[in-house]
Amino acid sequence: MSESLCDIGFIGAGVMGKNLILNLADNGYRVCAFDLDHHKLDALLQQDARERGDQPARIETCNSYTELLARVKAPHLVILSVPAGAPVDDVCNKLLDAGLKADDIVVDTGNSLWTDSVERCKRYEGKLIFFTTAVSGGEVGARFGASLMPSGDPYAWARIEPIWHAIAAKVDPQSGQPLERFEPGNPVTDGEPCAAYIGPIGSGHFVKMVHNGIEYADMQMICEAYDVMRSALEMSPAEIAAVFRQWNQGKLNSYLIDISAEVLATVDAETQQPLVDIILDRAGQKGTGLWTAVSSLEVGCPAPSIAEAVFARSLSTRKVLRGRAAKKLLGPEIEPVPQAERAEAIRQLHDALYCAKICVYAQGFDLMKLAAREQGWKLNFAEIARIWRAGCIIRAVFLQSISDAYERDIKLSNLLLDDFFIEQIACNQANWRRAVADASLRGIPVPALSSALSYYDAFRRESLPANLLQAQRDFFGAHTFSRVDRPENEKYHVLWSEKDRPIVKI
Amino acid sequence: MSESLCDIGFIGAGVMGKNLILNLADNGYRVCAFDLDHHKLDALLQQDARERGDQPARIETCNSYTELLARVKAPHLVILSVPAGAPVDDVCNKLLDAGLKADDIVVDTGNSLWTDSVERCKRYEGKLIFFTTAVSGGEVGARFGASLMPSGDPYAWARIEPIWHAIAAKVDPQSGQPLERFEPGNPVTDGEPCAAYIGPIGSGHFVKMVHNGIEYADMQMICEAYDVMRSALEMSPAEIAAVFRQWNQGKLNSYLIDISAEVLATVDAETQQPLVDIILDRAGQKGTGLWTAVSSLEVGCPAPSIAEAVFARSLSTRKVLRGRAAKKLLGPEIEPVPQAERAEAIRQLHDALYCAKICVYAQGFDLMKLAAREQGWKLNFAEIARIWRAGCIIRAVFLQSISDAYERDIKLSNLLLDDFFIEQIACNQANWRRAVADASLRGIPVPALSSALSYYDAFRRESLPANLLQAQRDFFGAHTFSRVDRPENEKYHVLWSEKDRPIVKI
Repeated sequence: MSESLCDIGFIGAGVMGKNLILNLADNGYRVCAFDLDHHKLDALLQQDARERGDQPARIETCNSYTELLARVKAPHLVILSVPAGAPVDDVCNKLLDAGLKADDIVVDTGNSLWTDSVERCKRYEGKLIFFTTAVSGGEVGARFGASLMPSGDPYAWARIEPIWHAIAAKVDPQSGQPLERFEPGNPVTDGEPCAAYIGPIGSGHFVKMVHNGIEYADMQMICEAYDVMRSALEMSPAEIAAVFRQWNQGKLNSYLIDISAEVLATVDAETQQPLVDIILDRAGQKGTGLWTAVSSLEVGCPAPSIAEAVFARSLSTRKVLRGRAAKKLLGPEIEPVPQAERAEAIRQLHDALYCAKICVYAQGFDLMKLAAREQGWKLNFAEIARIWRAGCIIRAVFLQSISDAYERDIKLSNLLLDDFFIEQIACNQANWRRAVADASLRGIPVPALSSALSYYDAFRRESLPANLLQAQRDFFGAHTFSRVDRPENEKYHVLWSEKDRPIVKI
Repeated sequence: MSESLCDIGFIGAGVMGKNLILNLADNGYRVCAFDLDHHKLDALLQQDARERGDQPARIETCNSYTELLARVKAPHLVILSVPAGAPVDDVCNKLLDAGLKADDIVVDTGNSLWTDSVERCKRYEGKLIFFTTAVSGGEVGARFGASLMPSGDPYAWARIEPIWHAIAAKVDPQSGQPLERFEPGNPVTDGEPCAAYIGPIGSGHFVKMVHNGIEYADMQMICEAYDVMRSALEMSPAEIAAVFRQWNQGKLNSYLIDISAEVLATVDAETQQPLVDIILDRAGQKGTGLWTAVSSLEVGCPAPSIAEAVFARSLSTRKVLRGRAAKKLLGPEIEPVPQAERAEAIRQLHDALYCAKICVYAQGFDLMKLAAREQGWKLNFAEIARIWRAGCIIRAVFLQSISDAYERDIKLSNLLLDDFFIEQIACNQANWRRAVADASLRGIPVPALSSALSYYDAFRRESLPANLLQAQRDFFGAHTFSRVDRPENEKYHVLWSEKDRPIVKI
């Protein structure tokens, strides 16, 4: 009897839901799917039929929440792929009306705000087990292997773990490279899965949010390097594509460098111009980078390069204003870089991108560390870096080095203090500095590359000029200060209006 | 009979409240004060007695909200100086219980969040007229002349206006300089008052918040200039004080430069060391800079230099981490600037500070402009710049130039597009670029000075590399793009997985 029941109930057959369902089916799970929109269920069944050829059907659909529960094994496992916000609660309540029990598990895989997940977990306590999984990798990841960041009840995780391991992206344990195969019905079954339990409810979506913040900065810095090659080195998109392809063979190997090369090598068939030249320079954003920057401000974690990347997107949308400014605001008059110096300038950019990238990841991991402390989460940073090696947008060999760093020292305070990264920046910083200095002199904006440099230089300063700042605050607002030669909890104030400006202990 | 009644009821006699009351009394207003803490009322009466000598008492106190209303002219004007948050509502409700009427005015002068004020105004509609005024200038400003940013019902403003004009800081209309006199009983009565109606409820506190964000960046940039002089030019605090004094005679003339010189010239009597050297380099913050940075992210207004200033304060508090990093992280090995080049390096810093300051104000005013559009406020930017010329922390002659810019063009889209500022940056940018480049090469962090430079350079670019970024987004997430040769509302997508990568219209 129970043989004929499905393993998983799945609600929501939109693009992401459909692909997750097909991925589950590829991995041998029997899924019963439901969507309020019957056309989506039809499309799902049609795609399944196309893909499986003459194999038996692997996916069932149903017409109601009640039917869904009847056709899935108890205790039920129900996965949601519905829009974030009210729809999640709507589905939970409908499932409860349909008879969901306290030991049934509901997994939200949508783009929920992490704080909403925390509230939901409380709201449904004792009624159902509310679990979440942040999914990175877009449609393709959902279909053939995503990076999965699950969080919530550990007992629920024990049941979900084998399923997530099956549908996750996989990494070759030797090379640290993604094992990619985009073939329906033929999933990658070996390798290390990019799915690991993150922690208590909410933590998975928080970690995914930081992933996206890093992604914003990564993309912005690649664009800055491109801009310098294009504007100062006067290189064509095809030439820059060649540079990115070469970079992709080395330390900078990553999905984002790879696709940047692909983009730059593409020509618009209609105009025969490089594709990039016919694309309007207005960048969109969906908010996760912004949330990361806001979080970093609120938690008190310096993440300036992520914020700069968000601001760069905002400024890109002010196209009309920039057009007017371009006609009126002067820049420096400097000749382009001579051909003979081009190779050297490209090397500088390479090293700048590499060093700044280390700083961006240092900022992102630091933000997770501070938020985890505030929330009482115990995050495994080595594992987080590991599950980002494949399936997600920032996938890169580089993440193996980050994972190694946290393996070497589980309590590492900041990536910049790991011996490997210390060495990497030490060897490459001279070129980074030259690249930033040169762009500053030439008038080419490099907000993320240069903010990362300031971050590095401030981070390694035992004494910052915040002493003067704190004195200013004491002057105008009596905000007091600590002395370097006394315990820090003792506060002092200068009586600024008195003649000898005596210092008094508060 | 009404002759014996007071003009104003005042609730809250803490530091700010007491000083505002004395300022009102100096200007001839009869105030009846109430505070739950009787000691504060006693202290107020004692200070009044000390200050007025043998003149008649000018301030009354009372024992209850009911008594307060009985001793103040109707319709009542009641000013609050109580902690932000619940206490404001508590006092409003107590006043209503005591018989406050719908035509009575309550003015909140505390540090309320602007959105809270908006909600309060709605909550008390028809019961009382809820008005706010953000007060800048600390204790001294409250006592002898503050910068006041009132917002709310325009009819209430008609009644409050003469009072605020009386107690506000004043500016010499010829020189644009503050008219300062710190003498009890002898207020400045001529000059232009730094109090102007900002707009609908909430707008005053929003404007004050942006003032503070600008203040953060202003302070940070002064600290960066100090740091370069100290670290690269190997100058003593006394020498740097002399430079700041000289700067204070020119374009950089401002309260913050002035007090920085004062701080740097101060010696700790106990150790005989420069005061700044015995102050711990951990900067505190109370949140308004952070709110400004968060607002700028949420509104989609690039304000990177304000965000960098907030992050710099956060990083300064990670003292232990920095201490460890200082021992392990390498910087460049560069000789200090030779004595012969010192003067030139100082000139570069001067121009860097000046140009970056223009960019910071451009960011702050842009943020107000975008927020005003979102909220439906009509802000008078020329007037806002004028009321910041005295009384507040960022007071500076520079604000006259900003006011002039908005007088010339009331619809100015951004300060950077004003002819005066275009000219100023054009003439001074070479030194700014050299200062940033040099600090980058030398390993001295200048996050605010350099982010302002990137802001300037991005702002004046007709084409930013956001075209590549938007192509990346289309590649991995099918986010689509607009074409430069088609209407912007037409969206296109490349079929990346097909051989010729055709572009399809969505």
